Amino acid sequence: MTIYQQIISLPEKPRGFHLITREVVRALQDIGNIRTGMCQVFIQHTSASLTINENADPTVREDFEMFFNKTVKENDPAYKHDYEGADDMPAHLKASLLGSSVLIPIHNGQLALGTWQGIYLCEHRNHGGSRSLVITAWGQ
Amino acid sequence: MTIYQQIISLPEKPRGFHLITREVVRALQDIGNIRTGMCQVFIQHTSASLTINENADPTVREDFEMFFNKTVKENDPAYKHDYEGADDMPAHLKASLLGSSVLIPIHNGQLALGTWQGIYLCEHRNHGGSRSLVITAWGQ
Amino acid sequence: MTIYQQIISLPEKPRGFHLITREVVRALQDIGNIRTGMCQVFIQHTSASLTINENADPTVREDFEMFFNKTVKENDPAYKHDYEGADDMPAHLKASLLGSSVLIPIHNGQLALGTWQGIYLCEHRNHGGSRSLVITAWGQ
Repeated sequence: MTIYQQIISLPEKPRGFHLITREVVRALQDIGNIRTGMCQVFIQHTSASLTINENADPTVREDFEMFFNKTVKENDPAYKHDYEGADDMPAHLKASLLGSSVLIPIHNGQLALGTWQGIYLCEHRNHGGSRSLVITAWGQ
Repeated sequence: MTIYQQIISLPEKPRGFHLITREVVRALQDIGNIRTGMCQVFIQHTSASLTINENADPTVREDFEMFFNKTVKENDPAYKHDYEGADDMPAHLKASLLGSSVLIPIHNGQLALGTWQGIYLCEHRNHGGSRSLVITAWGQ
Repeated sequence: MTIYQQIISLPEKPRGFHLITREVVRALQDIGNIRTGMCQVFIQHTSASLTINENADPTVREDFEMFFNKTVKENDPAYKHDYEGADDMPAHLKASLLGSSVLIPIHNGQLALGTWQGIYLCEHRNHGGSRSLVITAWGQ
């Protein structure tokens, strides 16, 4: 068994949910040749997150943005951490609801995603800047 | 260190939360002998999910179904992705709230679950069909 | 590649969100020397959870407690599992929303957390007792 690791930086994206499967597959091809193994993508931030969901219809990703905005309100007067912008504390909460990493099996040399699965970068800030991902793959 | 992988198919289950610890343990026994390691279970779908929770009282799993139905409403007029059935878009959202995989340590040759922990398959569709799981274990 | 594992017990903490990065780093130093790899922290309970979020301002963690209490209500008359205390069923739900483990890359011999990332132990019970964590690290 061996392990490979690469840190990549994604250019700033608008607030919302974005497919990044292609970027992860490309990084994985760069870093090594694993037939059976695992690939983790980890985001080094606390106001953006990663998840796996439907890779086809863009309205699914728009509904994600709508749902999470409705569920994690901005400007709740109960927030104490309110001095970094109305989108900041909700971004932290959304990040923990969705998670800071995805872990995907590698089968026959490829990510074993289901037909309809893609990797989402979930940008919860209005101006989140570029985002740093650590991609690690191990196996044989 | 070595790594084993197996893809299993679970027969269709009714909408709700179902214990599948036994099925995972059985697959793990089939695929190899690891004393110290990790086991990941990954679901290759975007309208069902996996989580770890209480393995004893079935009312916990009924309360999960109640809570997630209340929190992620069907027929929200704000949904744009509404043409695959009232249960479809909520299923995608629930899947990302809960997650597409669980990762469990292997200790002394067994899943190191706590006394009360079990693995749940969370079926969010009314008629989800059979579900495909990739089970990967690595260690020594 | 090699793998190390250690089970540690954290003393009881009050209900709320607590930084435990230091405890994890200490355990990691004890268990071995990995330059490039992964570290998983797994909690063996169903009413407490683990997540990664902002490591600086304590009000972020207070807002987490406020948000999750508001989102996952106590004493919902719809709960069937209600005989272990008003905080019990909400604790199970919060645990699955947040997750039972975190998985962090190891880069240059250290946890590759972003500048603002820390590991939270999320104690959802009023009197949760001590909590058992399985820490596993693998790599080379």
